[in-house]
Amino acid sequence: MKIEKINIDQKLKKINEHWSPRVFAEMNDYQFKLAKVKDEFIWHKHEETDEAFFVINGRLTIELKEEKVFLEKGEMVVIPCGVEHRPFAEEECEIMLIEPKETVNTGNIISEMTVKNDQWV
Amino acid sequence: MKIEKINIDQKLKKINEHWSPRVFAEMNDYQFKLAKVKDEFIWHKHEETDEAFFVINGRLTIELKEEKVFLEKGEMVVIPCGVEHRPFAEEECEIMLIEPKETVNTGNIISEMTVKNDQWV
Repeated sequence: MKIEKINIDQKLKKINEHWSPRVFAEMNDYQFKLAKVKDEFIWHKHEETDEAFFVINGRLTIELKEEKVFLEKGEMVVIPCGVEHRPFAEEECEIMLIEPKETVNTGNIISEMTVKNDQWV
Repeated sequence: MKIEKINIDQKLKKINEHWSPRVFAEMNDYQFKLAKVKDEFIWHKHEETDEAFFVINGRLTIELKEEKVFLEKGEMVVIPCGVEHRPFAEEECEIMLIEPKETVNTGNIISEMTVKNDQWV
């Protein structure tokens, strides 16, 4: 078995779309995903799982119903299962997501922003 | 419920020991841990889980039985369940680990390098 290391910046360079997370590694039944994001996402929640957001480059705001979480490069937050949230980035921002394999980007909502799961970079 | 963001560098500044992973966040039944490491760890494996290593600062070598994985800042690797490995850092290196809550740092081996689990930073 060949065990390959992954370079985050090299993977990010291959991503051209916004709000379309790409899987770059798996651990047990979890996936590590990278995404470029800009402007507003939609309000949604994940009923079945927590979701971890790391900011690799840029600034990300995660709007919650009663507060906002402002994340800069090198910062992370875990949005608990069932908590409605809306990510937002004024300028393009590069993020890492960690969540179970079957997690859909728009959670409980199906919209034009819902993307196919399990797309690798 | 207050949802707190976490700044990785600020957490790292609070860690003084080598090879003693500190939990800084949880997602479902997984934990995010930070560690400062230097010199050789021991050979071990995790029979029950894969283990993700991210290099935050510095360089980390993960020796496997038939190869070595050389990681620099911004690189990661997932060591699969059951694969014997030995991390090594020539100079002090700062890493993030992601693994299930109950994961012991020395896996299947109990040694003087085994540390108490679930220590937070």
